[in-house]
Amino acid sequence: MARYDFASDNTAPAAPEAIDALIKANSGFTPGYGADAISRRAADLIRETLDADAEVRFVASGTAANSIALATLVQPFEAVLAHEHAHIATDETGAPTFFGHGLGISRLPGASGRIDPASLTAPLAARDQAHWQSPAALSITNATEYGAVYAAAHIQALTAPVKAKGYSVHLDGARLANAAASGFDLKGIKDLGVDILVFGGTKAGMTPTEAIVLFDKALARRFDARLKQSGQLPSKGRFYAAPFIGMLEDAAILRHAAHANAMAKRLAAAQPFKVTHPVEANAVFVDMDDERLARLHATGWFVYRFIDGSVRLMCSWATTPEAVDELAAVLRSLA
Amino acid sequence: MARYDFASDNTAPAAPEAIDALIKANSGFTPGYGADAISRRAADLIRETLDADAEVRFVASGTAANSIALATLVQPFEAVLAHEHAHIATDETGAPTFFGHGLGISRLPGASGRIDPASLTAPLAARDQAHWQSPAALSITNATEYGAVYAAAHIQALTAPVKAKGYSVHLDGARLANAAASGFDLKGIKDLGVDILVFGGTKAGMTPTEAIVLFDKALARRFDARLKQSGQLPSKGRFYAAPFIGMLEDAAILRHAAHANAMAKRLAAAQPFKVTHPVEANAVFVDMDDERLARLHATGWFVYRFIDGSVRLMCSWATTPEAVDELAAVLRSLA
Amino acid sequence: MARYDFASDNTAPAAPEAIDALIKANSGFTPGYGADAISRRAADLIRETLDADAEVRFVASGTAANSIALATLVQPFEAVLAHEHAHIATDETGAPTFFGHGLGISRLPGASGRIDPASLTAPLAARDQAHWQSPAALSITNATEYGAVYAAAHIQALTAPVKAKGYSVHLDGARLANAAASGFDLKGIKDLGVDILVFGGTKAGMTPTEAIVLFDKALARRFDARLKQSGQLPSKGRFYAAPFIGMLEDAAILRHAAHANAMAKRLAAAQPFKVTHPVEANAVFVDMDDERLARLHATGWFVYRFIDGSVRLMCSWATTPEAVDELAAVLRSLA
Amino acid sequence: MARYDFASDNTAPAAPEAIDALIKANSGFTPGYGADAISRRAADLIRETLDADAEVRFVASGTAANSIALATLVQPFEAVLAHEHAHIATDETGAPTFFGHGLGISRLPGASGRIDPASLTAPLAARDQAHWQSPAALSITNATEYGAVYAAAHIQALTAPVKAKGYSVHLDGARLANAAASGFDLKGIKDLGVDILVFGGTKAGMTPTEAIVLFDKALARRFDARLKQSGQLPSKGRFYAAPFIGMLEDAAILRHAAHANAMAKRLAAAQPFKVTHPVEANAVFVDMDDERLARLHATGWFVYRFIDGSVRLMCSWATTPEAVDELAAVLRSLA
Repeated sequence: MARYDFASDNTAPAAPEAIDALIKANSGFTPGYGADAISRRAADLIRETLDADAEVRFVASGTAANSIALATLVQPFEAVLAHEHAHIATDETGAPTFFGHGLGISRLPGASGRIDPASLTAPLAARDQAHWQSPAALSITNATEYGAVYAAAHIQALTAPVKAKGYSVHLDGARLANAAASGFDLKGIKDLGVDILVFGGTKAGMTPTEAIVLFDKALARRFDARLKQSGQLPSKGRFYAAPFIGMLEDAAILRHAAHANAMAKRLAAAQPFKVTHPVEANAVFVDMDDERLARLHATGWFVYRFIDGSVRLMCSWATTPEAVDELAAVLRSLA
Repeated sequence: MARYDFASDNTAPAAPEAIDALIKANSGFTPGYGADAISRRAADLIRETLDADAEVRFVASGTAANSIALATLVQPFEAVLAHEHAHIATDETGAPTFFGHGLGISRLPGASGRIDPASLTAPLAARDQAHWQSPAALSITNATEYGAVYAAAHIQALTAPVKAKGYSVHLDGARLANAAASGFDLKGIKDLGVDILVFGGTKAGMTPTEAIVLFDKALARRFDARLKQSGQLPSKGRFYAAPFIGMLEDAAILRHAAHANAMAKRLAAAQPFKVTHPVEANAVFVDMDDERLARLHATGWFVYRFIDGSVRLMCSWATTPEAVDELAAVLRSLA
Repeated sequence: MARYDFASDNTAPAAPEAIDALIKANSGFTPGYGADAISRRAADLIRETLDADAEVRFVASGTAANSIALATLVQPFEAVLAHEHAHIATDETGAPTFFGHGLGISRLPGASGRIDPASLTAPLAARDQAHWQSPAALSITNATEYGAVYAAAHIQALTAPVKAKGYSVHLDGARLANAAASGFDLKGIKDLGVDILVFGGTKAGMTPTEAIVLFDKALARRFDARLKQSGQLPSKGRFYAAPFIGMLEDAAILRHAAHANAMAKRLAAAQPFKVTHPVEANAVFVDMDDERLARLHATGWFVYRFIDGSVRLMCSWATTPEAVDELAAVLRSLA
Repeated sequence: MARYDFASDNTAPAAPEAIDALIKANSGFTPGYGADAISRRAADLIRETLDADAEVRFVASGTAANSIALATLVQPFEAVLAHEHAHIATDETGAPTFFGHGLGISRLPGASGRIDPASLTAPLAARDQAHWQSPAALSITNATEYGAVYAAAHIQALTAPVKAKGYSVHLDGARLANAAASGFDLKGIKDLGVDILVFGGTKAGMTPTEAIVLFDKALARRFDARLKQSGQLPSKGRFYAAPFIGMLEDAAILRHAAHANAMAKRLAAAQPFKVTHPVEANAVFVDMDDERLARLHATGWFVYRFIDGSVRLMCSWATTPEAVDELAAVLRSLA
């Protein structure tokens, strides 16, 4: 039977703190649709974690959260600027254009998933033209798809010219916890020009849940109606809020993310293949040919070849040192 | 502090069988996106429960599940025939038109949420006309929004002429468990012409989850891509599948629904207001003026005035006889 | 062979002034997409006609023009308030929800297509609620579907409370010329709170063309991109602008509309059936049973039974007194 | 004042045959929405021209026609395969995704706008995967954006493997007349696996009009409702049909296209810049630096730098030899 420990960070179970909070939340009657005390408590904890007076909503899906965020910031006849390998650009079956009714994605280059600031100059300078979708927002992912982590200054270098044009900024934080554990300051996000953050719960070790954080509170007008129409206003909202309580109350989320990051560094060091991206979060990307990948799969370890051609080895809160060492040994045997 | 016991059947916590199964599922690494053994097991149990060889998917939201079902069956320039007070027609902020890109809803009358078969004659007989959205599907809700339960023969009387036209049928089963506990034969659904069933988990006492059941398996082609684009292909699919295992393995779902239905009958009998719809599932609708509703709210019991003007008192698996008696006493004091 | 003279005001050919202007415009090379001198001249004439400093665009379709206007003013999770028999609500195959990505239409009552101001009170007072599409705009049609004409004060009574809520106003002017010929002051529209007007060309006797007039010029930002994406930014824009030049330069449009209105009055007076709506523009609605309608059709005159049950007899710029008298004689023979 | 003779083939006026037919059509009352004799006659002529028993509809916009065609063939969660520089991929402000509700465009390479058949192998072989938009149709443009003309065998090499997969084929014929004048057999299209053809009128020298040709007649079911909802069911349909009558009745369309093509060859031969694409239709693409382009603009001749970096010089039915020689002289002076 195949083992999925390193296939993705969503193959792991939920962390005990998340499950315990969910069980604790499962008591008594509460109002629906996010109007309950558990949802309020979780939102407070997120505001505390971010040191920001923001509106917070809990939804079931990261794909939906990102897509709804973009639909909020960008008109159908406009475009979002994003890294060419961003999840929204490559791996969501067109969900942003679906929720955004045709909005476009302008793909920008940059090493290891971090957008090259120089690549913004041309699209921001281009004059509005009725035949193209002019940009209206920038989408950044931290940590990136390639396990790199943006420094705040790098984000600032991207958002400053975007905000100067009056455009908006979306931060895809599917792996925000890993970025934070790698040194990215969560309390500083509010000063980086971000309008909407999707604070990932699922890949951080929760049962499925994502928090949409509206730093620009004006965006909250009728936002619940937008969520409802998009199938993302959960009636039993407490079950999407509770895991965040368990994971944020004593910063368990950061401990788990630090563990995942450490497992990635351990794996990178113990395996023999060429590492293709900086190991700053919970992913290790290696250069491996098809024949070796097939042999790896034959040993029972399932992992993916990624869009850049590298093979991705993903760690999570649940990755054990033993599993890392076992996989590394197999990789050494294949090299 | 207000009490929400009777406000809706989504104010209750999840039943122990659902939570226990979720905890049990939270172990080890599994493939994502529904390709795991837990999702397979839950799908098998649903097929068994329905005695049908159907495709099954688990999603987070009933609104999304219904809307995706309709988008699958109806083109944007077509319409779905539905009861004028159906959830899809009145209470989902236009989600079916959002997911269905403009599809129309043709509203049909009928007592207590059951569509009057005679009302189908005209729309089915109308010739195609480019200026209107011609029907392409029928949507039925069982149990209805008003706590009534369709007999199989009534559904047959609706679906037969619809299928004869080559149109499709969607069954909204948000409260299918309550209908089943009231005598509606789940194993018979496959013979009623239903193409897509949404088998409700949330209101039946689970953590948020709904099963989309494709009786017409041809509809499953690229359906996962449709789900992904719609933000409803959960990466950690086991958490949406597991509660169904706990609730279906020994038919706990029916026991809980039978309890909810019994609580509704107990409440109907013990309270003094005129009951406005047959109490066949877990709802009691009563005739109550604004002044008395305000006084009821002042006692701390929160309930809603419904679209037909009645006040809705909703029971769930978690409703206790004591709470019923307590509410009934308050209602008697107001009458 | 059937005669369509009274079936609609779009069965008529284009008026000579429109065709002559089109022929005149057909000379030399011009820039595309509305950037030509002919489009500028036509826009100037519309601004003059309306005595308003507005942005003007020319498009091919009234259905598209109205739908794009509503998509500009209303989010997908919001609703437009409109007369229950307005063209956008009944006769456009869901185009507004298609272009508006799911936006809702809240239907209001009112005699002869004019919205009853009292009907606005409830929807404007309703608090925002995530489960419904709250209103964001009002749509008015002048002349109405039933050939009635709004007085400015009536419109003011509708738009004042709507604007006070911060909502927007759309004026469907498919038959604005007929309203103007009936006394509605075009230069006064700018003071009535209208944000977007669709100034109809087609039914006024032009080749297909409609002008979108943005009184709120802020709405013009990237509006051409919206038009292009919607398939309504004509490359050879001159052919949509030119007919307006021919019809506005010496107010031919008003002469033709006055003629159409006069033909309707002549017909109403000469025919024997009960007239069901005030004859203030170019339509006569009469009470006629199916048997008589069938006999009328058998004589070769084709007309429609309308949504309110009346039979509609429509006049246009091209309706001749002889045709009116001929039809009236037939109608008298049937009565 | 700038001259736009070579800026595009939509800067030209309409040809006399088109205008004359339009004037001739402007007589008497006709039924609306394409049910008139003029629309029937034009559709017959198109069927004759194509030697095919197809359904034909006339619409106002090529952008809309292509987008509606793709929305008919491809689901929102699927993709269309197209040349990376196809008009639908680069120049329509996302209209295909707007009309197609999120459908994707997979960009394929190929010299001079002709898709390289080898580039189809990978996307057609890729297994369905829920995270990407799998292909469902191929879109071909003939003549291409770069003025190249596909041979029938080349198209066959593209459509055969696509049809073998059960996918559909769209042919964007904005410049079909130029392709035909260059030797592409219109009567052979029906054997090339094309499901929907957009037969361009506008760039061929008509007033704005495009014909949607449904070779697969099953696609015509409720197609008029689709058109209506998309704002493309013209009430005065005769004005979109008539120009095709004038241009097809004695094959004027081919004479005009042959003239445009000849002017392109004359220009290519008379000017000194390096020609970057084969001159097989009505376009000449040349290699020109920014400084020389600026100087050309300064002389009053306006032309565009195209997406591949070349400067595009476009001829039309209305291009005169004198204008060609005049431009060529200017170009020689700049070289």
